[in-house]
Amino acid sequence: MPLDPARTVAELRELQELTGDENGSQRVAWTDTWETARGWLREKVASTGAEAEIDEAGNQWFTLPGQSERALLIGGHIDSVPNGGWLDGCLNVLAGVEVLRRLAEEGTPALTVRLVNWADEEGARFGRSLFGSSAAGGSMSDQAELRERRDADGTALPDALAAHGVELDRALEARSRLAKAAAYLELHIEQGPVLESLELPLGVVLGTFGVERHQITFRGQAAHAGSTPMDQRRDALAGAAKLELEIREIAKRIGGGAVCTMGGVVTKPGIVTSVVETAECLLDQRHLDAAQLAEMLSNAEAASRRIAAEESIEVEWEKIWSIEPIPFDERLIELADESIREVAGTSHRLPSGPLHDAAEVARSGIPTVMLFVQSLRGLSHTRLEDTKEEHLELSVRALDRLTTKALEAFA
Amino acid sequence: MPLDPARTVAELRELQELTGDENGSQRVAWTDTWETARGWLREKVASTGAEAEIDEAGNQWFTLPGQSERALLIGGHIDSVPNGGWLDGCLNVLAGVEVLRRLAEEGTPALTVRLVNWADEEGARFGRSLFGSSAAGGSMSDQAELRERRDADGTALPDALAAHGVELDRALEARSRLAKAAAYLELHIEQGPVLESLELPLGVVLGTFGVERHQITFRGQAAHAGSTPMDQRRDALAGAAKLELEIREIAKRIGGGAVCTMGGVVTKPGIVTSVVETAECLLDQRHLDAAQLAEMLSNAEAASRRIAAEESIEVEWEKIWSIEPIPFDERLIELADESIREVAGTSHRLPSGPLHDAAEVARSGIPTVMLFVQSLRGLSHTRLEDTKEEHLELSVRALDRLTTKALEAFA
Repeated sequence: MPLDPARTVAELRELQELTGDENGSQRVAWTDTWETARGWLREKVASTGAEAEIDEAGNQWFTLPGQSERALLIGGHIDSVPNGGWLDGCLNVLAGVEVLRRLAEEGTPALTVRLVNWADEEGARFGRSLFGSSAAGGSMSDQAELRERRDADGTALPDALAAHGVELDRALEARSRLAKAAAYLELHIEQGPVLESLELPLGVVLGTFGVERHQITFRGQAAHAGSTPMDQRRDALAGAAKLELEIREIAKRIGGGAVCTMGGVVTKPGIVTSVVETAECLLDQRHLDAAQLAEMLSNAEAASRRIAAEESIEVEWEKIWSIEPIPFDERLIELADESIREVAGTSHRLPSGPLHDAAEVARSGIPTVMLFVQSLRGLSHTRLEDTKEEHLELSVRALDRLTTKALEAFA
Repeated sequence: MPLDPARTVAELRELQELTGDENGSQRVAWTDTWETARGWLREKVASTGAEAEIDEAGNQWFTLPGQSERALLIGGHIDSVPNGGWLDGCLNVLAGVEVLRRLAEEGTPALTVRLVNWADEEGARFGRSLFGSSAAGGSMSDQAELRERRDADGTALPDALAAHGVELDRALEARSRLAKAAAYLELHIEQGPVLESLELPLGVVLGTFGVERHQITFRGQAAHAGSTPMDQRRDALAGAAKLELEIREIAKRIGGGAVCTMGGVVTKPGIVTSVVETAECLLDQRHLDAAQLAEMLSNAEAASRRIAAEESIEVEWEKIWSIEPIPFDERLIELADESIREVAGTSHRLPSGPLHDAAEVARSGIPTVMLFVQSLRGLSHTRLEDTKEEHLELSVRALDRLTTKALEAFA
């Protein structure tokens, strides 16, 4: 079968019909609907002759043997958040199916080609994202903690996994599936506004951002809003306000795609008749370059201390979470750029703010790259998530081109 | 009996022993403990021969007949918040008792002198402050709404009042008690830091601030903290931050004791991975001059619109509550100033941020003034509320001097 990108769009709609409702997609991992989607996928791939199997972490593999045991991997995830969109994760998988069909038709590829449908990328039910890819990539180190996790109904994570044939204690055995991997490709919707603002359908992802996430607490003194003169106040909210404005200057100064976000402030006592005593701020800073990220963090820390001194208040930092930047493979980035230019004329390189399964694969040392296709209004994780059909079709063509180039380059 | 300010301090401690516990004062209006305090007060006043009665709003009056039926009123409130301080409200009453004793000893005063213990100044149980004084002053207009109010245990306000002999529907009949009032005096702890910062024991209150209280909502666009470039954000928190800093400039520019407070911000969605979509800000502005207060409000509104335009976000104002400034009587302010200078050497004039029963009396057209005595660390409504004993004694002396001067001036 020659490549038929329109079929991918039709299959995306068919999947949505099968596993979604009026509120959006409902393919939450470790549920019956997710299992329905996996069964449906197995049937779709069957005609290619690729061998289907599920690994120890619940990842679904389809293997098309090549002239070499070394393998080119194409990945995605068919699970969604509750009330999710029709593209996040499953576009990747179905575009991969279309590429498999084209390859199967053409005979034995130079490398073995394996399509992987990662288990539980979203972490929607148990709050643990990238489950299957972190097991296969080998970074999963929180099994003891995962054993205690429960969903909203009180079901323990190990029990939910067991119902789908996965033993938590054996999940890391999925590492063997990456032993012969030569390279990894992933297509995804952008889930951001950059490509739309540039009026470009496609972009190459340079890697996933490093993230520094902190809670910053300013402490002043609660005081009566009526009886405390302005010059005798120690207002914690003034600290939060100055820092909110300062982190934007820091991101601008550092540049290179830097983003800084104060996503929330909690004020206490938080009543109209009192000066704010404590302001708890959530700060998220991201950069593709580890040194620049470290500088952003240190700039924000210095600014917060200067502000605290100016306002006669105190400031305290507490780390919430951080991750190093994960750069993708330079050779594959070049090939992806070429592929996009061939199908769409113009390419664009951009970092990924959200994490993806590709980051886990790249962290494990396998050359990796991602393609982004434009998201309308940058929306995702909602039924309003959308991409123009012509862009979806271009994205399937670009992934197909990239597959051909990668097979040549890594053979 | 000659004036004995030390006795006032001793009686304050006795009242605290009788009606407080390790968490502070527990004289919440319309409770048994409050009734105990009123009974105790009646016994304390008995020796003066003043006639005791309770009016239709639950206010407790002690009347020492004078040469004229026209009356000089001295007021306070014996009710407290739960876990309250040992001075708020009851200092006023007990200082008044000491003045009554001195007057009774000296014979028949030129004017009738009446000490009033206002009912439910704090509104701690039903959220309706200044109950008794607003009934007597005639401003109470929310009886229909009060009829529906319930306390935390579900008891209706009219039932709680009835248990203490007050019919809500007849409360406004208490207005008759002010018919022959010539002037009203009230001593109170400052509940703010001004006198302490000036190292002065006493001050004259110029009036109670006018207040403009508004909720200001900035609306931007939620967007992924990782995938949304800085220049494509519409961050509602930036609006709140700029306004928080701007209101301080407005207060400084207007001057004359102006205070502006952003007491709280609620951010939505308020999560670390999203740009803030809405920021709901609580704004409180106060000034003793109505025109200046109006200008402060209009400056803040203009600033919010300029900020919204700068940030490409929207802004919406909703009024929470407002009250006009209530200036006190100029002649009485002069007399109060003289009284303080005579007992403490130096006086200071300041507005009152908090409202007081005196504001209700002044609103009804009766010449009114208040004396403030220093509060340590500005604390009130907590068992940590305190004032030096020497300052408490000076405050009793100042009230006594002021009473003498007012009896001469208004006779």
